Amino acid sequence: MGTLTRFSVKPLSTMTQRLAGVASGRAEPDLVIRDARVLSTYSERVLPGREVWVSGGRIAAVKPAGSYRGSSAKTYDAKGGIIAPGLVDPHIHIESSMVTACAYAEAALLNGTTTIFCDSHEIGNVMDVAGIEAMLEDARRAPLSIFLTVPSTVPATSPQLETAGGDLTAEKIGALFDKWPEALALGEKMDFVQVAMGDERSHAILAAALQRGRPVSGHVYGREFVSAYAASGVTDTHEAIDRDIADDLLEAGIWLFLRGGPPTTPWHSLPQAIRTVTELGASHKRIAVCTDDRDADDLLTFGLDWVVREAVAAGMSPQEAWAMGSLHGATRFGVEGEIGGMGGGRRADLVLLDDSLKPLSTWYGGELVVDDRKITPQLDAALSDRYRYPDAAYRTVKLPRQVKLTPDLPTEKVVANTIRTELPGITLGHEKITLEPANDWQTHFDRHGLCFVTVVERHGKSAGNVAHGLLSNFTLKRGAVASSVGHDSHNIIIAGVNEADMQVALEAIEKTQGGVCVVVDGAVTAMVELPIAGLLSDKRVTAVADEVKALKKEWEAAGCSIPYMGFNLIPLSVIPEIRITDKGLVLVPQMEIVAPFEPA
Amino acid sequence: MGTLTRFSVKPLSTMTQRLAGVASGRAEPDLVIRDARVLSTYSERVLPGREVWVSGGRIAAVKPAGSYRGSSAKTYDAKGGIIAPGLVDPHIHIESSMVTACAYAEAALLNGTTTIFCDSHEIGNVMDVAGIEAMLEDARRAPLSIFLTVPSTVPATSPQLETAGGDLTAEKIGALFDKWPEALALGEKMDFVQVAMGDERSHAILAAALQRGRPVSGHVYGREFVSAYAASGVTDTHEAIDRDIADDLLEAGIWLFLRGGPPTTPWHSLPQAIRTVTELGASHKRIAVCTDDRDADDLLTFGLDWVVREAVAAGMSPQEAWAMGSLHGATRFGVEGEIGGMGGGRRADLVLLDDSLKPLSTWYGGELVVDDRKITPQLDAALSDRYRYPDAAYRTVKLPRQVKLTPDLPTEKVVANTIRTELPGITLGHEKITLEPANDWQTHFDRHGLCFVTVVERHGKSAGNVAHGLLSNFTLKRGAVASSVGHDSHNIIIAGVNEADMQVALEAIEKTQGGVCVVVDGAVTAMVELPIAGLLSDKRVTAVADEVKALKKEWEAAGCSIPYMGFNLIPLSVIPEIRITDKGLVLVPQMEIVAPFEPA
Repeated sequence: MGTLTRFSVKPLSTMTQRLAGVASGRAEPDLVIRDARVLSTYSERVLPGREVWVSGGRIAAVKPAGSYRGSSAKTYDAKGGIIAPGLVDPHIHIESSMVTACAYAEAALLNGTTTIFCDSHEIGNVMDVAGIEAMLEDARRAPLSIFLTVPSTVPATSPQLETAGGDLTAEKIGALFDKWPEALALGEKMDFVQVAMGDERSHAILAAALQRGRPVSGHVYGREFVSAYAASGVTDTHEAIDRDIADDLLEAGIWLFLRGGPPTTPWHSLPQAIRTVTELGASHKRIAVCTDDRDADDLLTFGLDWVVREAVAAGMSPQEAWAMGSLHGATRFGVEGEIGGMGGGRRADLVLLDDSLKPLSTWYGGELVVDDRKITPQLDAALSDRYRYPDAAYRTVKLPRQVKLTPDLPTEKVVANTIRTELPGITLGHEKITLEPANDWQTHFDRHGLCFVTVVERHGKSAGNVAHGLLSNFTLKRGAVASSVGHDSHNIIIAGVNEADMQVALEAIEKTQGGVCVVVDGAVTAMVELPIAGLLSDKRVTAVADEVKALKKEWEAAGCSIPYMGFNLIPLSVIPEIRITDKGLVLVPQMEIVAPFEPA
Repeated sequence: MGTLTRFSVKPLSTMTQRLAGVASGRAEPDLVIRDARVLSTYSERVLPGREVWVSGGRIAAVKPAGSYRGSSAKTYDAKGGIIAPGLVDPHIHIESSMVTACAYAEAALLNGTTTIFCDSHEIGNVMDVAGIEAMLEDARRAPLSIFLTVPSTVPATSPQLETAGGDLTAEKIGALFDKWPEALALGEKMDFVQVAMGDERSHAILAAALQRGRPVSGHVYGREFVSAYAASGVTDTHEAIDRDIADDLLEAGIWLFLRGGPPTTPWHSLPQAIRTVTELGASHKRIAVCTDDRDADDLLTFGLDWVVREAVAAGMSPQEAWAMGSLHGATRFGVEGEIGGMGGGRRADLVLLDDSLKPLSTWYGGELVVDDRKITPQLDAALSDRYRYPDAAYRTVKLPRQVKLTPDLPTEKVVANTIRTELPGITLGHEKITLEPANDWQTHFDRHGLCFVTVVERHGKSAGNVAHGLLSNFTLKRGAVASSVGHDSHNIIIAGVNEADMQVALEAIEKTQGGVCVVVDGAVTAMVELPIAGLLSDKRVTAVADEVKALKKEWEAAGCSIPYMGFNLIPLSVIPEIRITDKGLVLVPQMEIVAPFEPA
């Protein structure tokens, strides 16, 4: 155990006598937060003139200001500021931030987030159950309350279309539920088409959760899929992208997690989806907000607190929006007796806010971890004692000995099935380009705005699968870029304009056993090393954020037309129109492999 | 199993493929309810132009009206009426209605109630675990979804103050949770003073629930107790009697169940407590409505549907009020994925309403059980095949051979500690009356407006405990009245003006092994026979309602100043100021026995 974890606060069942004694005035609290306004997520009001009594890391009582007349409690003067329950993020992927759970905690607490529901499907895709369990151990060591929504769709498609490191069957998922009490729900069931079509494996996985009374989280696009998806037992989603599908989902009994992404990304659907409330008059009681994915550097700037403020900007009252950021997620997952509000007996996960809902200070289990926007020495100590992943997690990039990373130059006129990248970088176009014979690839690249894209299998599970393709409109000017975070199987994806720089990029990733890098003229100009499962840094979040900023700078300088997060999604063969995996080019939604070059 | 029970609908985990197929249009629904408006408890709107597709007793989808174009489904024309989810009563005691769970179902379904959370503490007080388990078997046979909130406070006080048949320790309560999956919560923890004071037994019982992740239901009076009670882990209550305590409870993280009682009773606190919303601006999202207790005849008239309409009368919108009557209770107990709304996959527990929210028809698990305010033949058949309680339940009135039911006439001047009854009949006054010597009791009765009150232990657990006292202001004109439903230990309570009629009443109850009766001049003029545990009739609810009506008529004719429900509470030694149990007169809140007569 670290010095400050979820387990530092004892179970309520062991503390009721103590807390009743404090609330009744027979015993002293440990801490009194004086002179506060209380943001009530229960009644959605701001209550003036309160003070908060904390004992054993839990809330003993909220009393009228000035009630405490003892002398032994520590006191903290809120100076009339707002005290609110810590935020609860109902849907995130830690791996997106390329940090460990212990490291993630630092950014979360700075943002006033004290609980997250994490779907660790990335590490599941690389390391199967062992990866998920390692991250659960990591989570147990973190100074943050981390619950698991068990990855439900690993691999994302099928072994015919891609080679993944993980294969989470219904049996394995059931065993995870039975072993880990923090596995509170099934994670987003991404294969919504298969779910709607009644696919055996998909429904066996749903049953593994439903049999155990665990709720099922969803991921669905398309109004035509909503009713079949709901009928399959799915009860939340974070993919509502506009007002009308948000409305459909709500009426189908599905909790809405409105995703706030950094404003420059396509993930920022909150302003559209919230219109089911602001325009169509729906109650917001079954609506929460979430972050889903964050680059490490964005994590510090665009946390869940920022999403709450976006909800205010979209028309919600501050107290409604904060309830959507805390109590509602807790209610959805059945833990509102423990977190999400400032009722008696709850964990003292608290945030001091200014009037614009910016977090100033955070208490985690009654311990001050952020004070006036800076982490406290206690949190710093906890963060310096992070979980170390097992050695096997540091050895997951298993490449074939010799790999040719570029296709042979066509000797005749061919039609190339190219992948056209467009901002914002989620969907990719299928562009057929006729290539007249040329003396070299550069001629084709210059004529058509192309570059190479290659995926190399890295789980050591194939006979060295390598797939070649061409990217259109990626606008890479020179060298190569590469990543071991190629969703969702996380094979190595490399784009480049020459074989040599692509080889340098691949070697760099093999050497560090994971990372994202930019190579120019034979040299690595920027790299975020991700040695854990090829997905995670083992550094603190501030260090990783700095590395990511440096990477983004070189990434842009190389000319890449979409950000690295979008680049990482190029192998994700569940999003239209065409993708590339280690098996080749995949046509979505036909779910078929197509050759890169066809006779003209 | 009866012909129609909770188990007629298979678990969702086994039905997702079928439901997805129906929702997608690949398979036919069983039933389509056409031309409906839908009352959405999720968004709190009424949605025009819908139809409801039902398959295997669950909702496959809610579609735009006219979507169904198949031919094999049964159809029901809602003729533009409102379809809403069945009501969910989050807190009731079946025994109050003096009927079995199977019989209770009939009244519930007529009122549009399809789920109840029942606290069977009365039968627990008589028969301990065996009584609770018999009622659970009864509940499993009922055409109604009945969940248990495990009785938490049996006996209500202590063996020093009363002799109960039951003694539910923390160990027994834990075993009930572990054995019965429908035991979803701990029932109302009535000893709120002991809870606040940190009593060992009380907190061990709280821990038995909290350790298992079960929520704890509450029962608390007095704003001064709220914070300690909440800090002890209690997260609902139905006892908020006014705006301010309702507000305190809500802010302490406690769900409010607003109790609507028949308007002539003191139980009707909804109009006061709802003012936390209507006057103080609190959100209603953590507020539900409940019935708590109902006489059998009132059950048919003042059901939960009536309480919902009372919430509308108090200022809520119809759709908010119906959500308070369905979804909110389901959410509080963590079963909103199954009931409380019309999302996909939910049980097809549905009600057709007129525009005043009066239930016309009810479907239970997709089966039409009430059609145009009348039960269907299918329900009639199910109700005719009710559970029979074990023989032991029919033998619970174990009386001493010879009992003297009246005290000796004082030979000197004494001060009598009398119990003064007052409408509405809940609290009782402690009236000290000086009795000058007289030749007979009738002289005292005439002078001071008195009659006898006697409690006889009936569990066969004592050496024949009998306690004598005097009632003041009960205004019994003649004969005797008696009941085996003397809360909470359910010993026999008898009031009378002469020993002979009191003996007749006691004999009548012994003969039927339970009941409430009126005796005049040696003859029983009205009686509701309660042979099951001395608490329940084994007849259908309509028959019991008729018997109760006849009893009430004779009860009034005998002159009794408070109704029989209030009379039954006279032994309940947790309500001020003075009570009588089989151990004698109990001073509340001193919790001491006092002699009926003291030297003047």
